Amino acid sequence: MSLEESRERQVLDRIERVRRRRPRLREERVTLAHGAGGKATNTLVDAVFLEAFRNPLLEAMTDGATVTAGGARLVFTTDSFVVSPLFFPGGDIGDLAVNGTVNDLAVCGARPLYLSAGFVLEEGMPVDDLRRVVDSMARAAARAGVQVVAGDTKVVQRGRADGCYITTAGLGVLTADVELSPENVRPGDAVLVSGPIGDHGITVMLARGELDIDADLASDTAPLHELCALLLKAAPGTRVMRDATRGGVATVLAEIATASEVAIVVDEAALPVRPEVAGAGELLGIDPLYVACEGRMVAIVDGTDADAALAALRAHPLGAGAALIGRVAADPEGLVLLNTAFGGTRIIDLLVGDPLPRIC
Amino acid sequence: MSLEESRERQVLDRIERVRRRRPRLREERVTLAHGAGGKATNTLVDAVFLEAFRNPLLEAMTDGATVTAGGARLVFTTDSFVVSPLFFPGGDIGDLAVNGTVNDLAVCGARPLYLSAGFVLEEGMPVDDLRRVVDSMARAAARAGVQVVAGDTKVVQRGRADGCYITTAGLGVLTADVELSPENVRPGDAVLVSGPIGDHGITVMLARGELDIDADLASDTAPLHELCALLLKAAPGTRVMRDATRGGVATVLAEIATASEVAIVVDEAALPVRPEVAGAGELLGIDPLYVACEGRMVAIVDGTDADAALAALRAHPLGAGAALIGRVAADPEGLVLLNTAFGGTRIIDLLVGDPLPRIC
Repeated sequence: MSLEESRERQVLDRIERVRRRRPRLREERVTLAHGAGGKATNTLVDAVFLEAFRNPLLEAMTDGATVTAGGARLVFTTDSFVVSPLFFPGGDIGDLAVNGTVNDLAVCGARPLYLSAGFVLEEGMPVDDLRRVVDSMARAAARAGVQVVAGDTKVVQRGRADGCYITTAGLGVLTADVELSPENVRPGDAVLVSGPIGDHGITVMLARGELDIDADLASDTAPLHELCALLLKAAPGTRVMRDATRGGVATVLAEIATASEVAIVVDEAALPVRPEVAGAGELLGIDPLYVACEGRMVAIVDGTDADAALAALRAHPLGAGAALIGRVAADPEGLVLLNTAFGGTRIIDLLVGDPLPRIC
Repeated sequence: MSLEESRERQVLDRIERVRRRRPRLREERVTLAHGAGGKATNTLVDAVFLEAFRNPLLEAMTDGATVTAGGARLVFTTDSFVVSPLFFPGGDIGDLAVNGTVNDLAVCGARPLYLSAGFVLEEGMPVDDLRRVVDSMARAAARAGVQVVAGDTKVVQRGRADGCYITTAGLGVLTADVELSPENVRPGDAVLVSGPIGDHGITVMLARGELDIDADLASDTAPLHELCALLLKAAPGTRVMRDATRGGVATVLAEIATASEVAIVVDEAALPVRPEVAGAGELLGIDPLYVACEGRMVAIVDGTDADAALAALRAHPLGAGAALIGRVAADPEGLVLLNTAFGGTRIIDLLVGDPLPRIC
C-alpha cells in the first residue's frame, strides 16, 4: 500500500467511524434543519451525499478538499449562500460569499487564490441591489487577495428565490507542508477562538426586524487568511483550524471531538461573548455557542504553543479579542464538556434543529 | 512588459472591444432574459460583473478561466443549474450539472479532474428525489472520470426554490499546450458541430407538459471530454471549441464572430436537426439554432483539418452525427450569415429574449 493509499484508507476509516455514530436519516422530506449545519445536516450528508460520492477526498469533517492537480497541492472548496435579508449591518450576501469561501481555504492551511461565483437571481431583483452585492464581492475579493475568475448567472421566476442566492467555489494553494486534521488533536492541547462569538447570526436575526430588539451589533464577516497564516507561523503545533459558521463554535468543537476521539473541556467564563449578543441570545432562547460567526475561527494547538498562538492572533486586528477557551483531555472520549459559570458541567452536542434559518 | 502582461493586455483589449459593441444595460430590474444566455445576459455580465471584477481572467468569451496555481496550469469554471422540471427524458438536474461543468472544462482543452457541488434545497423536497439527483450526479461523475470532492447544502423555505438548484464548479488540468481562443479563428477555417442540435431544450420544454406535443425525444446531456480530446489530437489546428448550451449554436457562433472579427457563413441545409426538434420548434416558433444542447459542441478548425476532424468526431458514439456546417470568411467582419435552404441569406445574431426559460 502506497503512502497515498494508506492515507486514503485512514480517511475512509475515520469517515466510517464517524458515520456509525450518527443517526440514520428518517425524514422523507427535506426540512430547514437539514440546512442548519448541525446534526440533521450531517445525517443528510451521510445518507445521501457521502453514500453517492463516496471518496476519501469528500471529507465530511473538513472545510475543503486537498487535491493534487498538475503536480500542485491545492485546496478546493464550495459554499452556497442564501442569507436573508441580503443586506445587514456589517455586510451583505456578497462579502459573506467571498469571505466564507476564502475562510474555508484558509483554515485548511491554503493561500486563497481564485474564486468562482454562480448566481441564481430572482426575476424582478433591482439591478442596483445586484450591483451593490457584486461591488461588495469585488471589495472583499481585493481585501483577501483573491481574483474572481469564473462566473455564471441564472434567473428564476418571481418568488422562486429571495433576490439572489450565490454559490462560490474557491481554489487555494498549500504553501507550507501543513497537515491539519482533527485526528491530530491530543490531550493537553489548547482550544482558542479568534474573537467574540455569535455576532453574525444575531445581527442577521435582528436585521429581519421581526423582533423588537435594538442592539448595536454588526456581522463579523471577514477574511481569516492572514490570521490563519500568522497562527501557523507562531504555532507550528497547530492541529486543526475551523471557521465557526453554521452551528457555531459548539458544533465545530463537537465535530472535532467526535473525529479525534478525545474530550474537549470548555470554560464558559472564558468564552468571549459581547453583552449585546448574550442579551439577544437570552431573549431568543439561543445559546451564543451555537450561533454562526463568519469571521471567527476555532483553533486547536499544542498546549505548549498556546501563549505564542494567542499572542499571534491578538496582534492582528481581526484577532484582537482572541481567547483561550479550553483544553483537550483524554476522557470522556468524543465529547465536549462545558464548565459553566455556575460551577456545573454540561455536554455540548451538535446543533439540533434550526433556531436561526437562512443565516448564511 | 512581460509575456504574461502582454497576454493580459491583449485579453483586456479584446474584452473592451467586445464591450464597446454591446448595448448598455437599460433595465432597472432583473428579467428572465438576463438568464437566457443571449444578448441580455451579456449586457448584464458586462455592466455588473465585468465592471466589478475587472480582471483578464474573467474572460466573457470562454467557458472557463485558465489559471496558474502552485506551478500547475489549470482551468477553473462554474455553472448554476435551475432546470425545471428536475427530471426529464434522458437526464435530470444532477447529470446536467456534472456534464455541464465537465464540458466547460473540456472545451477549454482541459482534462476534468474535480468537481464541487453547492445545493440549494427547497424545504419539503422529497428525500427520494434528492437521492435520485445525487445518484445521477455520481454516475455522471464516474462516466466523466471526475471526483466530486467538495459540497455544501442549504435549505430555503417552501416555494423559495423549485426542489433544488445546483451550482457545480470544476477544476481541470491543461494536458497539452493548447491555445484555444476565438481570436485564433481565421478565414478558411471550417465550422463543425458534434451532433444533432436542440434536443435538450426541446425535450425539457415538452417535459413541462404545457404543450400538447408528443415527440420521441431525449436530452443530449453527455460529457464531451473524450470528444474534445479526440478532436485536439486529430486536428492540431483546432482554433476554438464551445459547448452549445444556453442560446444554442447561433449564440455561440455570434459570440465567436464578434470576438474574432471574422465572418462565419453557415449552410442551413448542413445543420443536423432531428425532424422531431424541427417540428416542435416550428410549432413553438423557435429556431433550433437557438435551442440549448447539453452534449453538443461547436468546433472551429483549420480548413485543411476539416476532414480529419470530422472523422475523429464521428468515430466516437457521441459524435456520430457530427457535421461540417460552415466556413469562416473575412467579410462581413463580426457577423454570422446563414445561407438558408431557400437560397436566401440572413444574419444570425445572439439570442434575444428568452423563449425557453429555465432550460438548464
